[in-house]
Amino acid sequence: MPDARPDLERLRSLIDECSNWDRWGPDDQVGTLNHVTAEAVAGAAALVRDGVSISMALDLGPSGPQQGGFRVNPVNLMRETGADHVGGVQRLPPDWGPTGGLGVGDDVVILPHQAATQWDGLGHVFWEGRMWNGKPAARVGAHGATYAGIEQWRHQFVMRGVLVDVAAHHGVAALEPGYPIGVDDLEATLEAQGCDVGTGDALIVRTGMLEERRGDWGDYAGGPAPGLSVDTLPWIHERRLAAVASDTWGLEVRPSELGGAFPFHVVAIPHMGLALGEIWDVAAVAGYCHRSGRFEFLLVAPVLPVVGAAGSAVNPLAVF
Amino acid sequence: MPDARPDLERLRSLIDECSNWDRWGPDDQVGTLNHVTAEAVAGAAALVRDGVSISMALDLGPSGPQQGGFRVNPVNLMRETGADHVGGVQRLPPDWGPTGGLGVGDDVVILPHQAATQWDGLGHVFWEGRMWNGKPAARVGAHGATYAGIEQWRHQFVMRGVLVDVAAHHGVAALEPGYPIGVDDLEATLEAQGCDVGTGDALIVRTGMLEERRGDWGDYAGGPAPGLSVDTLPWIHERRLAAVASDTWGLEVRPSELGGAFPFHVVAIPHMGLALGEIWDVAAVAGYCHRSGRFEFLLVAPVLPVVGAAGSAVNPLAVF
Amino acid sequence: MPDARPDLERLRSLIDECSNWDRWGPDDQVGTLNHVTAEAVAGAAALVRDGVSISMALDLGPSGPQQGGFRVNPVNLMRETGADHVGGVQRLPPDWGPTGGLGVGDDVVILPHQAATQWDGLGHVFWEGRMWNGKPAARVGAHGATYAGIEQWRHQFVMRGVLVDVAAHHGVAALEPGYPIGVDDLEATLEAQGCDVGTGDALIVRTGMLEERRGDWGDYAGGPAPGLSVDTLPWIHERRLAAVASDTWGLEVRPSELGGAFPFHVVAIPHMGLALGEIWDVAAVAGYCHRSGRFEFLLVAPVLPVVGAAGSAVNPLAVF
Amino acid sequence: MPDARPDLERLRSLIDECSNWDRWGPDDQVGTLNHVTAEAVAGAAALVRDGVSISMALDLGPSGPQQGGFRVNPVNLMRETGADHVGGVQRLPPDWGPTGGLGVGDDVVILPHQAATQWDGLGHVFWEGRMWNGKPAARVGAHGATYAGIEQWRHQFVMRGVLVDVAAHHGVAALEPGYPIGVDDLEATLEAQGCDVGTGDALIVRTGMLEERRGDWGDYAGGPAPGLSVDTLPWIHERRLAAVASDTWGLEVRPSELGGAFPFHVVAIPHMGLALGEIWDVAAVAGYCHRSGRFEFLLVAPVLPVVGAAGSAVNPLAVF
Repeated sequence: MPDARPDLERLRSLIDECSNWDRWGPDDQVGTLNHVTAEAVAGAAALVRDGVSISMALDLGPSGPQQGGFRVNPVNLMRETGADHVGGVQRLPPDWGPTGGLGVGDDVVILPHQAATQWDGLGHVFWEGRMWNGKPAARVGAHGATYAGIEQWRHQFVMRGVLVDVAAHHGVAALEPGYPIGVDDLEATLEAQGCDVGTGDALIVRTGMLEERRGDWGDYAGGPAPGLSVDTLPWIHERRLAAVASDTWGLEVRPSELGGAFPFHVVAIPHMGLALGEIWDVAAVAGYCHRSGRFEFLLVAPVLPVVGAAGSAVNPLAVF
Repeated sequence: MPDARPDLERLRSLIDECSNWDRWGPDDQVGTLNHVTAEAVAGAAALVRDGVSISMALDLGPSGPQQGGFRVNPVNLMRETGADHVGGVQRLPPDWGPTGGLGVGDDVVILPHQAATQWDGLGHVFWEGRMWNGKPAARVGAHGATYAGIEQWRHQFVMRGVLVDVAAHHGVAALEPGYPIGVDDLEATLEAQGCDVGTGDALIVRTGMLEERRGDWGDYAGGPAPGLSVDTLPWIHERRLAAVASDTWGLEVRPSELGGAFPFHVVAIPHMGLALGEIWDVAAVAGYCHRSGRFEFLLVAPVLPVVGAAGSAVNPLAVF
Repeated sequence: MPDARPDLERLRSLIDECSNWDRWGPDDQVGTLNHVTAEAVAGAAALVRDGVSISMALDLGPSGPQQGGFRVNPVNLMRETGADHVGGVQRLPPDWGPTGGLGVGDDVVILPHQAATQWDGLGHVFWEGRMWNGKPAARVGAHGATYAGIEQWRHQFVMRGVLVDVAAHHGVAALEPGYPIGVDDLEATLEAQGCDVGTGDALIVRTGMLEERRGDWGDYAGGPAPGLSVDTLPWIHERRLAAVASDTWGLEVRPSELGGAFPFHVVAIPHMGLALGEIWDVAAVAGYCHRSGRFEFLLVAPVLPVVGAAGSAVNPLAVF
Repeated sequence: MPDARPDLERLRSLIDECSNWDRWGPDDQVGTLNHVTAEAVAGAAALVRDGVSISMALDLGPSGPQQGGFRVNPVNLMRETGADHVGGVQRLPPDWGPTGGLGVGDDVVILPHQAATQWDGLGHVFWEGRMWNGKPAARVGAHGATYAGIEQWRHQFVMRGVLVDVAAHHGVAALEPGYPIGVDDLEATLEAQGCDVGTGDALIVRTGMLEERRGDWGDYAGGPAPGLSVDTLPWIHERRLAAVASDTWGLEVRPSELGGAFPFHVVAIPHMGLALGEIWDVAAVAGYCHRSGRFEFLLVAPVLPVVGAAGSAVNPLAVF
């Protein structure tokens, strides 16, 4: 079903309400990560009690959710193998000298940044010729972003993370594709979980969809999905959240409530400078939260500082 | 200068002394990361006071240290750009519908895992047909490692990090290529810094070489370098360190003291199961350590869980 | 439907009957291309009368037949674009000087050699540890083939081509998947077409399958297909054909008549040293043949001399 | 030495004199290949007497001329190897069934089109926002060229080739970098060789530089070089040549006579629609020409039809 023209009036109203252009000066390249103060980092670290670290990343490889088309799963290619070593055909560089029993494995990965668990960068979405902070979108050219490339976030993403398990609160394995998660959903779930989110936090929303589709992905990576309603944008903005992530491919509800493609992204990335995380595999973390009754943790999720990139694969760790 | 044949007697003695084969059972795939207990993780998090996070990763891109040959610098390639959006030639997937003012940036990186700041995986080095834990080296084939691939470390690398600034202790900008850092160097530097390393820690050694070569790399990534002497291996083993990293391309001294190629690696990776970090850019962290007088911190350095990979690019963060 | 164990007795009998090991000496790296003599090349060129050249290559790009999995379609990635030039963000190398109105386009392709129209190289198939001419299969290691890599064919593939339109002879748009094309089919079709094949020729077999699946590929690249029966191998061997190609992904009938995977390949590549062409788009050439009544032509189909490669994408031209 | 501002007056005069815009209609996508008539193709084939085919391609691999920077040498990466087959770790796709003694080799190449022997496509150079035939340069975007992509040449490059060995005519191993080959050089060399060039021909110019630099490339791929003077452009235009190739990286003399970067390209590609070949290894062909006294031959040099590409690696064969 093709999207209709977006409800531009509502979209522009949200942009006006939530824009952070110039909030941190005309040269800012990190956006809402500015909300993560030193106090917030120290407070996040203080949440660690159990000493348990749990990954929220999908494996990067052929079992991933991409089905070809716009993106493909990462491909790892070996340049040196143990089979070559054993078969006696490994050629080591000449300056490595006589190597006796030595063998090496070495490899290279062809990695579409957004193929699996990822951060969207501030060069990922444009609106009417502009990118984050009002800069010209053409600053993201064939050589990558010369403004707000992902490497600008190299020191970031040590912060408080809060899981909001909306699926569990609804008592379902997974929310339905097309279900828009509203402010009421978030607030009711947080209240039931006994926690809140605030300045500099990462809000991590569980819809259950990744777990339902795992291994039999179908249109998971590109099709209809439950996700955040555009109505949550002012709520996120007021609370000064630094990042929002989810277990779907696009974070926001698909198809869009406003009729056009990706209105949540259009407000969040070029106008708010908000870090969005997608395809996060929160299953194990959700299990730990429910068993422990604690839905907050230290989140560490550093980007790969690929110069000029519009996104980054990430292995987000929740530390309890 | 070609390496001579290795001193195999000394090498085999070190292997015998330091081997961890079967220490954690015949199926272990994480090696010395087993030393990082829950208590150690909680203790590491408790080190955070200032709320300051500092990256130890080089940028991934054309300015990197590779000069062609065995490895190349990462290449980021754009699939969608803001220039296309502005130029009116961006073709969005048909199911994205009429998109109004929407534009997107998207990209893929060709990433040799060990081109820049990295973890060596347990499939990176073999010895006489065997890999970590005594498994056949052929388990690292053209499809990658089916044993101890880097993805087995997906939950790891939240730990205590200790910087050992050997260059500063020697009062030099950088140690000379070929200088072997011995146990005395490590102990004297630690004593001067007023800290120690122990079970489950990451030892991070500063030689100064990366800073000296930055931007004019020459043979940095492959040539002679200062680095750890094989004499430090029993010391590392006794102290149950979980990881060792440095600011050189190969961590160990080059050319090797034992005459052959990479004896430190041969003991550390296939026999100890020790995590080795290379090309770590510790300049900013060292500056913070000296200013604050504190050389220990929370280290968060999650791998990319690329299935079967023999290494991983990493953005290690030191959190003070 | 999984293949059963191959009929090894029949397979070994075919290997014995058709093997060319040592026929051209122990160091031969070009196999049946040895059949293409200078006289044959000159004779092939003499077939050109109309001055019409027609490609038999599929486009290399996202519309290709691969559906993910074992192979993917080629991906072309731009490093410089006209959109960047127009947008004023193109960065030309510094030694290109002030460039006034100059702009450039430049690109790199990630090309699985066998994703579309291709030659199988002599390093593509092994049998019981051996490759072409009896050499150890381990000579094809992670760095590619050090024996009989595709670059050894760099001067080859100027020869007489003969189209055998079996589908047209059967009066069908396409032969059914699983249909084994036998010697009778080839001989009857050739007789009806009024031509023969002989020493040094390329036999090009049309099944019609590619045309039937074009644009809606389904399991075209990997599934059941019509193709050559193993019974044609002795016939090909006796006639000293230099190459055999077809419009299916695997050339031979699938599933195999012998129960196992790829018996035709096992005889043809490692034992005969026969050049096999797959996924050739013969539609336009077949049309020209039928209109002109001539099914022979000059075939020019040079490989890309990628050092050590096990195959090569190719743009085969039929010249009438 | 940075180029000065180009002599724009002379450049614009050459553009006016040589432009083929609209010569073959507003939708033409093949440029000067229109000069290659059916008669020309048949005539070219009739040149074949000896039945000898000689490649003019460099091997594609690590020995290539690129030294990093703007372009890198092609990288071939194995997905399946004989070493894995022998080592017993080859995993064949499940639908290949029980495979007995079968093993396979398979690979993918990362191929910058212009890293070695190549055709420049008509999307390779722009001038003041325009590409070939006056179309907007933005038609070459991040997805490649939607006008005059290299695949538009899929049936082309079967033609008469004429080698012009200017180095031999000057009695030198190689012309000096910076030497501009003029009309006099071409005419004198052709006269000495006893042949001419005309409508639809490919002119292949030997400077000797590739042979001089082979294996110790230095700045071969990007530095000063001998090459065609812009003065030859009207001569090429009048003679209706279809293609011009040479053994240097940039075909035209470098540094440029007009002070700016690539004036020959600016006239030839966007304005004439002329096919340019670069890094052609003509050594063996030149030897054959001198021994036989014949400097004309059938040239077959089909492109890879990569959709939207701005160039193509090519293995050009000279057939005598």
